[in-house]
Amino acid sequence: MSANTSGGRTRLSPEQRRDQLLGMGVELFSNGSIEEISIDRLAEVAGVSRGLLYHYFGSKQGFYEAVVRHAADDLVAQTAPVDDPDLLVRLHRSVAAYVDYVVANEQGYRSLVRAAAGGNETLRQIYDEARFALTDRIFREDAAGDLIPDTPATRLVVRAWSSFAEEAVLSWCEQPRGIDRAGIVRIVADALPALVAAAG
Amino acid sequence: MSANTSGGRTRLSPEQRRDQLLGMGVELFSNGSIEEISIDRLAEVAGVSRGLLYHYFGSKQGFYEAVVRHAADDLVAQTAPVDDPDLLVRLHRSVAAYVDYVVANEQGYRSLVRAAAGGNETLRQIYDEARFALTDRIFREDAAGDLIPDTPATRLVVRAWSSFAEEAVLSWCEQPRGIDRAGIVRIVADALPALVAAAG
Repeated sequence: MSANTSGGRTRLSPEQRRDQLLGMGVELFSNGSIEEISIDRLAEVAGVSRGLLYHYFGSKQGFYEAVVRHAADDLVAQTAPVDDPDLLVRLHRSVAAYVDYVVANEQGYRSLVRAAAGGNETLRQIYDEARFALTDRIFREDAAGDLIPDTPATRLVVRAWSSFAEEAVLSWCEQPRGIDRAGIVRIVADALPALVAAAG
Repeated sequence: MSANTSGGRTRLSPEQRRDQLLGMGVELFSNGSIEEISIDRLAEVAGVSRGLLYHYFGSKQGFYEAVVRHAADDLVAQTAPVDDPDLLVRLHRSVAAYVDYVVANEQGYRSLVRAAAGGNETLRQIYDEARFALTDRIFREDAAGDLIPDTPATRLVVRAWSSFAEEAVLSWCEQPRGIDRAGIVRIVADALPALVAAAG
């Protein structure tokens, strides 16, 4: 990113400026403080005017939603399956990346789950889209259905498994109960084929 | 319940009156309308004065919370394990009762989940207590650990399984995908031993 500074303010292209503001927002999101911070304080931290923030995002709520969308895109990107011929290896790697994402963004992730469940329609949509992206690619990854045949029942199981994964990882963050990172990854990843097999 | 009527109003003991109001509230809870209804309309439907409602429950919010607690107690009572020597039979019967409860109270149950997740502290506590009652008795039922040994890891798995169950049943209510009641009961009940076995 090329930038010139002038009088304490950084000169960036509109695109760069927007990215910088979103990056700052994602940081505030990750520690759960984005909902509490005022637009004035946001502008101050970013070294821009309130007017510029409104120009880019329309409102405080608009900024919040843009940040959450950015964070959700990060989650989907960071958990993208690696290039390995073994489906189970790809599943384990994706789950490990998911665990790492939740650990790194715990407060923000909790506030997204809360806001989505609590009835904010835009946040629920972002949350649902991210969850759909995470679960749908399981079927795309396994187009032959070697591990998980694509049926209405397995679609339901995979969706409910994502709730299992979310609860298991958030609960583990709160209270690790002597389970290490490898242990929680194994519990969550191995749960999927076990659930699919049990559902017949 | 013994009652005398006088001039269109029913004479009940304070205890009976409170029960009657809670029963009415649970009905409003089950169809999801309890949050929207005004205290005036509540009093009108119940045939009591606003003052009496305040006398029993302190506030609209107090009434709402008492009703949700009542509904959560019903859930725990209705899903109590039956008397059968086979642990798996008891598990299936409990899950079947849970499915029936969610079907009968779908809108109320959704609004409880939403309110608990959305940050209402009292409702979160009622929800957590009900969930703890539902999962903890799995360990009490199986004190010898024949199906589920009581370890920190299985406690985590059972807790996350309850999120799996909730998502699976609510998702099935919304879109049955050709799965009948017996099918969803089997998917949810069989998931538990499968998850415990997978977690090793």
